[in-house]
Amino acid sequence: MTTRTIGVALLGLGNVGGGVVKLLEANAAAIEARLGARLEVRAIAVRDPDKGKRVVDVDRALLTTDIEAATRRDDVEIVCELIGGTTLAREAVLGAIAAKRHVVTANKALLAEHGAEIFAAAEAAGVEVFYEAAVCGGVPIIRVLREGLASDRVEAIHGIVNGTSNYILSTMTESGRPFAEILREAQELGYAEADPTLDVGGGDAAHKLAILVHLAFGTIVDVHAIPTEGIDVVEPIDLTYAEKFGYVIKPLVIARAHGDAPDSPIEARVHPALVPANWLLADVAGAKNAVYIHSYALGSSMYYGAGAGMLPTAVSVVSDMIEISRILFLRAAHHGARPRLPTPRPIVPRPLVPLAEVRTPYYLRFGVRDQPGVLGQLMTILGAHHVSIAQVVQAGPGRRSSEASADEPVWVVVLTHVAREGDVAAALAEIDRLPVVRERARVIRIAS
Amino acid sequence: MTTRTIGVALLGLGNVGGGVVKLLEANAAAIEARLGARLEVRAIAVRDPDKGKRVVDVDRALLTTDIEAATRRDDVEIVCELIGGTTLAREAVLGAIAAKRHVVTANKALLAEHGAEIFAAAEAAGVEVFYEAAVCGGVPIIRVLREGLASDRVEAIHGIVNGTSNYILSTMTESGRPFAEILREAQELGYAEADPTLDVGGGDAAHKLAILVHLAFGTIVDVHAIPTEGIDVVEPIDLTYAEKFGYVIKPLVIARAHGDAPDSPIEARVHPALVPANWLLADVAGAKNAVYIHSYALGSSMYYGAGAGMLPTAVSVVSDMIEISRILFLRAAHHGARPRLPTPRPIVPRPLVPLAEVRTPYYLRFGVRDQPGVLGQLMTILGAHHVSIAQVVQAGPGRRSSEASADEPVWVVVLTHVAREGDVAAALAEIDRLPVVRERARVIRIAS
Repeated sequence: MTTRTIGVALLGLGNVGGGVVKLLEANAAAIEARLGARLEVRAIAVRDPDKGKRVVDVDRALLTTDIEAATRRDDVEIVCELIGGTTLAREAVLGAIAAKRHVVTANKALLAEHGAEIFAAAEAAGVEVFYEAAVCGGVPIIRVLREGLASDRVEAIHGIVNGTSNYILSTMTESGRPFAEILREAQELGYAEADPTLDVGGGDAAHKLAILVHLAFGTIVDVHAIPTEGIDVVEPIDLTYAEKFGYVIKPLVIARAHGDAPDSPIEARVHPALVPANWLLADVAGAKNAVYIHSYALGSSMYYGAGAGMLPTAVSVVSDMIEISRILFLRAAHHGARPRLPTPRPIVPRPLVPLAEVRTPYYLRFGVRDQPGVLGQLMTILGAHHVSIAQVVQAGPGRRSSEASADEPVWVVVLTHVAREGDVAAALAEIDRLPVVRERARVIRIAS
Repeated sequence: MTTRTIGVALLGLGNVGGGVVKLLEANAAAIEARLGARLEVRAIAVRDPDKGKRVVDVDRALLTTDIEAATRRDDVEIVCELIGGTTLAREAVLGAIAAKRHVVTANKALLAEHGAEIFAAAEAAGVEVFYEAAVCGGVPIIRVLREGLASDRVEAIHGIVNGTSNYILSTMTESGRPFAEILREAQELGYAEADPTLDVGGGDAAHKLAILVHLAFGTIVDVHAIPTEGIDVVEPIDLTYAEKFGYVIKPLVIARAHGDAPDSPIEARVHPALVPANWLLADVAGAKNAVYIHSYALGSSMYYGAGAGMLPTAVSVVSDMIEISRILFLRAAHHGARPRLPTPRPIVPRPLVPLAEVRTPYYLRFGVRDQPGVLGQLMTILGAHHVSIAQVVQAGPGRRSSEASADEPVWVVVLTHVAREGDVAAALAEIDRLPVVRERARVIRIAS
């Protein structure tokens, strides 16, 4: 009996593409044993076939600059988009779908920006689009949401989904060194991109959150409408205070349903947050990712692992290829009819909760003149805006040393009870105008 | 367009069965939206249809005592075995397979004892057997191993898979109270069975480990050949010493491949173990479960959640029904041909590493007479058996108070470097015969 072979075209041969080639080689026997078939790369589209050094050695004859030719080869059934970006990648994915090829992609930006278009095209063409690697690299969070929790109703998600941000905040926490210095070092070590905006600014995390929201809450949100803050607002002194209060600061994505109805509003946001030190998420250190889910029936569950890296990401890409191959075997038996797996669920429009209506506790750090009565002024304004105080620390580890100038601010740090974001913002706008205030208030939300 | 309905027969209506009925009702709309079909319970086999109080209210007309009749109804496609045990459940599952019904089961004992027979029967009959709920309740660890890591090669598994044992050890750690007292309390609270042997003795965990080994390492081990120790060896003083050394004691299952070949030996064991306090598993408290996997490409990943309970377990059962329904839709299109999903991988015989050949660090607690020279005797014997010492503490918190009789033992606690189990056993046999030894040595392995 000859072993069936499934042909694959890779579009792109960077880090993840190289990982896919390497994993297909290294685990060929195990994959074949598990699938009862071989996965074979039949073409690899690259920008420059003559490029010297690559992540892996590949047969030069596989390389082509022609994406369409690679996609439309007769012996290719699965097209794996690893180009990145949203322009060429979008064309390539839509082209593959039009050619009735199944698609695997690791491209979170593409799905967050053009998911609706791509899924509709795939539905119309009767092909599969799998994207496990787009969120949390090797952690099978897409499968968990699509299958493991298929019978459950997700109520809230808290995730650490950007490894670079988590690495930087973890290292800041351990070393006490400032953001810019650690970022520079991470760039030198290759942990952070030369342009780190998408990672440390929260844009990458927002893309992933949009995908999680789609699967968990059955709606497509405009990724640009998700309130998004980067980790660059966090200073070492905030990490010190957080620890003092029993928290660590983590780069979180948060989503929550406001109500049980299928079309009730969704809260979604991306920002660094104070996480209680006894939460499992508080121990997710370094560049690791994790998603903590609260659902109606299962209660809390967490999924943890490597969110990036050549081989971890390749695990998800190749596992998707295996899954599609299994579906192909089922299809093969009935000669071209169209029994697709039903899509996870129909898309329902759900409003996004406006940021002003979000309710959470807050960490507020005020840089004020060191003079009597300041605390009273701050408390009065917060109270007037219905922001109730849980704890206050004046100065403490951040207090200026005796050598410092009297003009330098001293810190007042406030932890609030649950408050309305709009009220907090109004109170801070008023406080920032006070003559005793030397520095704009620093605001970090507390996870709850 | 009429919505398709998939008919289900439940065998058993205890805690999990009740959870399934409740979840199918509570999440009916979401399940239908996701699946594009309705799951409907058409029959429920119970021992006594006239039993008064049940976990959920069900239509009396659904109840029957006739398992075969429920299974063979024309309008039933999926049979859900929730009877428990291995005799009647085995007959019921094999009967359902013979009747060409797909099977969902939560029965770990059944699969661990009779898995090979059941999977072979299903393969021959062309039906699916799904069992997500059999390991870690609602945590989708079976899907993760079967699909998410399908492209990877698992190297080691460390799991907390028995919630009762974890609850007891966690409560002992927090309260310092002894095992028997907490067990009694857990029984009163309904957290532990009236006969706790299978839980606290490690048998339940061994069943689950056998299932994990099957999926992760592609082999079927004799569950009775897995070295299994219960948590009743742990005394409060061991938890105190563990903490002093930077560990917590957790009820672990451990499996590891010795070598990368598909038929290389497998190490598998069930016992309480000292876990470094900075491991994520150390924070898995109460009755929660978690499985920490180390694999070739992904590195480390962890899956955490509720390992038991009516609704969490029902999540896995109903998600399995949804998955099977999706396969049924694919099958429907081709009129009775047999395009099953390929089985995860063929079964390869792999030898179990004998316990004497296991290599790990050890925690040893000796109860000795309080007299000079004892430590020297212990160290000499350990050294003679190639057991190398990492740390020693003499007496400490367990040292007898001045009022105690001089006959009472004092404790010498030793942490070893990695040692061979056979060498440790030989050394301890010799030490236990020493006249200065008042109590047999307590041995707890250290996770590594």
